[in-house]
Amino acid sequence: MSFAIQLFDLIGIFVFALSGGVLAVRHRLDLFGVLVLACATAVTGGIVRDVLIGAVPPAALADWTLLSTAMLAGVVTFHWHGIIERLRNPVLMFDAAGLALFAVLGTAKALAFGLSPFAATLLGIITGIGGGIARDLLVARTPVVLQQTELYAVAALVGGGIVAIAHALGWPQAPAMVVGALLCFGLRFMAIRRGWRLPVARDADTP
Amino acid sequence: MSFAIQLFDLIGIFVFALSGGVLAVRHRLDLFGVLVLACATAVTGGIVRDVLIGAVPPAALADWTLLSTAMLAGVVTFHWHGIIERLRNPVLMFDAAGLALFAVLGTAKALAFGLSPFAATLLGIITGIGGGIARDLLVARTPVVLQQTELYAVAALVGGGIVAIAHALGWPQAPAMVVGALLCFGLRFMAIRRGWRLPVARDADTP
Amino acid sequence: MSFAIQLFDLIGIFVFALSGGVLAVRHRLDLFGVLVLACATAVTGGIVRDVLIGAVPPAALADWTLLSTAMLAGVVTFHWHGIIERLRNPVLMFDAAGLALFAVLGTAKALAFGLSPFAATLLGIITGIGGGIARDLLVARTPVVLQQTELYAVAALVGGGIVAIAHALGWPQAPAMVVGALLCFGLRFMAIRRGWRLPVARDADTP
Repeated sequence: MSFAIQLFDLIGIFVFALSGGVLAVRHRLDLFGVLVLACATAVTGGIVRDVLIGAVPPAALADWTLLSTAMLAGVVTFHWHGIIERLRNPVLMFDAAGLALFAVLGTAKALAFGLSPFAATLLGIITGIGGGIARDLLVARTPVVLQQTELYAVAALVGGGIVAIAHALGWPQAPAMVVGALLCFGLRFMAIRRGWRLPVARDADTP
Repeated sequence: MSFAIQLFDLIGIFVFALSGGVLAVRHRLDLFGVLVLACATAVTGGIVRDVLIGAVPPAALADWTLLSTAMLAGVVTFHWHGIIERLRNPVLMFDAAGLALFAVLGTAKALAFGLSPFAATLLGIITGIGGGIARDLLVARTPVVLQQTELYAVAALVGGGIVAIAHALGWPQAPAMVVGALLCFGLRFMAIRRGWRLPVARDADTP
Repeated sequence: MSFAIQLFDLIGIFVFALSGGVLAVRHRLDLFGVLVLACATAVTGGIVRDVLIGAVPPAALADWTLLSTAMLAGVVTFHWHGIIERLRNPVLMFDAAGLALFAVLGTAKALAFGLSPFAATLLGIITGIGGGIARDLLVARTPVVLQQTELYAVAALVGGGIVAIAHALGWPQAPAMVVGALLCFGLRFMAIRRGWRLPVARDADTP
């Protein structure tokens, strides 16, 4: 189980880092900029979570495999960004898997540090979407996750929430994490397929 | 006294969250984006303060009433943003009250954690203006508090500074907090009324 | 030795703060905005480092001389920004010296807090470039350090990396810090003179 989690964690990091690298290449950043954006996208969510729960130094600094994986993804993007952009669909699938894993693992870690189910769910969401927000801010654009995306954060909320509720009810954690991750992934997958979105306020244009 | 502080704290959070929600609606963010911007505006200042003084997990995560209040404000904005925009003047008044409370409470909390009066005043300012900065950065614009606003941060400096000076001189804290909050609010109120502003550097256009 | 380090640290802060102040004046921020941007540029890197290694409250808050130096630089910029802009070349030299000092001192501090050489080098880079990133984000532009600059971050990597490697091999720290700082400064100096840059991904325009 633990090995499977680590493996999925690294896959999530790799795919998140790809999305940062692709954006960096589009903005004509140099090699270093591509690496920074890849790393920031992959580990910012986890670093913010660790700082907020007092788990310093954060896992992303204590364990060199995480950042190395993100840097590898940055180098891959730098050289083969054309291919990655054409692979858009598989990347979206991996990204949904990464989101599901990050939301569930982030919630579980916060619960292990003694936070309430409410706070732990929030930290799961932060773990899942923090990287994408950092990525977009670094190229000075409004984070896409705040705009109309297909239930991105809602999926993270569902995944983390299930783990937190199971914890509050005293249910076993492992199956709750599996169910939470699957539901998060499935919701995001269906939302992309069907174009499900959250509403925008009516008459937002007319001040 | 303590209940009054909590009440004002929640009012401050609610009004700060309204300002974030209104900006989010104007930028056509979806419901989730509105909630995130409302929460970020309301609690970022306090979270940054808590992380910097080592009070983790931050109060905003440990106490679910704070974020719930911010989310409620987000939902209210989402549905009745037109009314809120027309209420601009009352909102500015509440916002000034929130700023005064946050600056004074932030300084007092930092002093309680053993920081110097100098550092505590800075943390009071950060508590007061941090949320507005996060709100503006999330929609990729230069924070208004750094541009020509009517003595926004200066008012926070005065409010927090009085609490810090009273602490350094060994004076009782409660009256200092009341005086600091009143002066901060009064200064901001007069600045809005009279259009008081800080100067801009001369010839800033001619490089 | 310790006095020399403190002196260079303050010089680094002063010069970094100048670069923030100049940018603030150009964006027509008011006096407070100039001070905030000067301080943010000077101390953000160190504050982020201190939060990540658990050294709270951060040195920039605990020691009032650091922020006072940054504010002094902000006031100087506000009044004589025209002169400072004409001094561009000397400022670039001081900035390179500040980068070298910050990268080396940041790495050494992280090592002293028990982090691995890998993580310590990263924290050295963050200490060196974090301020510039915060400065650019606050005026809503993509950080220049991520775009094509003359080996800015690479120089920080070399400086911090030498200190970390020396630590891992058990060599004495003081000479490693001197060599690291000199190499970092020299690399940045030559890169500015000769226009050395990192590559941009080929065909970045053609998606």
